[in-house]
Amino acid sequence: MEIISKTISNITDIAHSLSEGTQERLDSLTKPQGSLGRLEEFAKQIVEITGNENPQLKNKVVITMASDHGVVKEGVSAFPQEVTAQMVYNFIRGGAGINVLARYVGARVVVVDIGVACELDPSFKGIGWSIPAGLEPHPKLVTKKINYGTKNMAEGPAMTRQEAIRSIEAGIEVFENEYQKGLHIVGTGDMGIGNTTASSAIAASITGYSVKDLTGRGTGVNDKAFAKKIKTIKRALEINKPDPKDALDVLSKVGGFEIGGLMGVILAAASKKVPIVLDGFISGAAAILAFKLEPKVKEYMFAAHCSVEKGHRVILDYIGLKPVLDLNLRLGEGTGAVLGMLIIESGVKILAEMATFKSASVSEKIDIQRETVKP
Amino acid sequence: MEIISKTISNITDIAHSLSEGTQERLDSLTKPQGSLGRLEEFAKQIVEITGNENPQLKNKVVITMASDHGVVKEGVSAFPQEVTAQMVYNFIRGGAGINVLARYVGARVVVVDIGVACELDPSFKGIGWSIPAGLEPHPKLVTKKINYGTKNMAEGPAMTRQEAIRSIEAGIEVFENEYQKGLHIVGTGDMGIGNTTASSAIAASITGYSVKDLTGRGTGVNDKAFAKKIKTIKRALEINKPDPKDALDVLSKVGGFEIGGLMGVILAAASKKVPIVLDGFISGAAAILAFKLEPKVKEYMFAAHCSVEKGHRVILDYIGLKPVLDLNLRLGEGTGAVLGMLIIESGVKILAEMATFKSASVSEKIDIQRETVKP
Repeated sequence: MEIISKTISNITDIAHSLSEGTQERLDSLTKPQGSLGRLEEFAKQIVEITGNENPQLKNKVVITMASDHGVVKEGVSAFPQEVTAQMVYNFIRGGAGINVLARYVGARVVVVDIGVACELDPSFKGIGWSIPAGLEPHPKLVTKKINYGTKNMAEGPAMTRQEAIRSIEAGIEVFENEYQKGLHIVGTGDMGIGNTTASSAIAASITGYSVKDLTGRGTGVNDKAFAKKIKTIKRALEINKPDPKDALDVLSKVGGFEIGGLMGVILAAASKKVPIVLDGFISGAAAILAFKLEPKVKEYMFAAHCSVEKGHRVILDYIGLKPVLDLNLRLGEGTGAVLGMLIIESGVKILAEMATFKSASVSEKIDIQRETVKP
Repeated sequence: MEIISKTISNITDIAHSLSEGTQERLDSLTKPQGSLGRLEEFAKQIVEITGNENPQLKNKVVITMASDHGVVKEGVSAFPQEVTAQMVYNFIRGGAGINVLARYVGARVVVVDIGVACELDPSFKGIGWSIPAGLEPHPKLVTKKINYGTKNMAEGPAMTRQEAIRSIEAGIEVFENEYQKGLHIVGTGDMGIGNTTASSAIAASITGYSVKDLTGRGTGVNDKAFAKKIKTIKRALEINKPDPKDALDVLSKVGGFEIGGLMGVILAAASKKVPIVLDGFISGAAAILAFKLEPKVKEYMFAAHCSVEKGHRVILDYIGLKPVLDLNLRLGEGTGAVLGMLIIESGVKILAEMATFKSASVSEKIDIQRETVKP
């Protein structure tokens, strides 16, 4: 807990003092004032977050946390639990959606096993990938396993309070390690069969909205399993009674290790004045809990997109974030986050590279009322 | 007119026959079906447009057409007319918004003088840019001047029918020239003080919506000029009575040369099976006229974003296009178009690079009803 408290104590308000000067610079550029809309807002916020009037976002990182969920025993997901581990192999091999989009964007992908339900085969055999077998974990995989998946939250707490704390600390450690390597902007990503169930439960606990209004079909459950999913979340909340005033209690009762890990990433990034780009619903669940721990994180965060999962919109409204993109995404992994980075960075480029009215000898706005106007 | 007719006759339906196979490929990738939302739709549409099952969008081009508008005499713009020419200099020098974003995206910018009201100084002197003076137009500028700006549409037709035809033909020529150099996707851009006035008039004529519902503040006019702008558009429509069934009549009566030029770009691109990414309101005005000439162009077009200019949404609804981005942009120049390309291309990368369930040994969706479910 000490690490978490220390990290939180290092989170300050963003540098609002730079707002006015940045706005003046934006208004001096050869365009009608405000005509680049949200790109200008992104540029300004990045300046304020980093405290740097000439920020750059060259080193992009997406941290994809993978973990399993005991609640899948209830039949709440359309995919079997083994898919979590299989997708970790896919991430390492570079074949998943996040790999493709991160390559496109120029972001590096950090894959973390924070609680996959099995021991991952270090040789990554049997997936057509021929690296030498060995006993060490794969060098591309960050191993921070808190446990072999959470327990079934429909029967009791998903994890102990100590595990909740350790999952957040693990996220802080992962972020800080990547920060040392060079990191200007960080995206959050997740993989975990069953984790929309946990995220809906977190959202219900914190926001007070009904489970029905916060639950979607995840990877695509049918009607019967969807009804079961809602029932399961309700039962988990009834049995565990998470305290909405205590984010750690909510995380431990109905959360997941990857959600705790992403909370740690968010807190650590804010403490280092690094802009955070949230992916979808699961990242939103981590964000709302981090926001409960320290509301100052809000201004460090961008919501990359609005997920198809309906609880996501409620979470973003609760925190007060407006999504950058709206593309009907619901894959997770950080896929939306890296696309969001692209758009956010374009605003920073505008601030850095556009000519001013003065430098380009372009006439400024006239007071139209002084114009000779025909009767 | 022969060139236009020939171009239109070469526009075919997109290759719907490739839809099913592409969907099957998308569904074989390691993600829940449809979970990449619109990215998957973009990929599919690009396959169908190009007729290529493995399309690439490497060579990106944005064609930015600049022209002046006689109607600025009425006091409808917040900026003086000279800004059109000044911004052309800025484009050539690389300091404008479109230059910054096109560099970021990796698109080449083609700047066209299709009707700037003055003779552009070929030496580009006096703007701090020291290329050798000469009598030839600047090599970076494509000169297709139809006239020195349009006439004042509040007093009579903006241009002759012959000029309207020539402006479209000029757009076709510019596109075909760039196509020869290598071009996989084309964006439309505009520069022209007064051109939101022309675009609102076009939108009103074609859609039948009231001028008030289609008119915004352009570069940022005050209340008095805004009222004047609406009154001017109404008068232009009353005096000229453009025939909504005749796109060329609408273009000539209340259009602009850059709007005609962009119509030509759209028609020519569709005839060559090249995806078109529309920028904002002015590009939308060109698109709705091109759509009236040949409805098949619709499926070749993507609406990059939804402009702050309220007439833009009406135009997109009329054609049946859903914007990719919504970032409160209203700069024009093609700035939204190049950002749209970024997102569209990301979908193509997904199709090209993601692993399949089979290749990655990932388990597919289960029928959840077969699962052992706790009572």
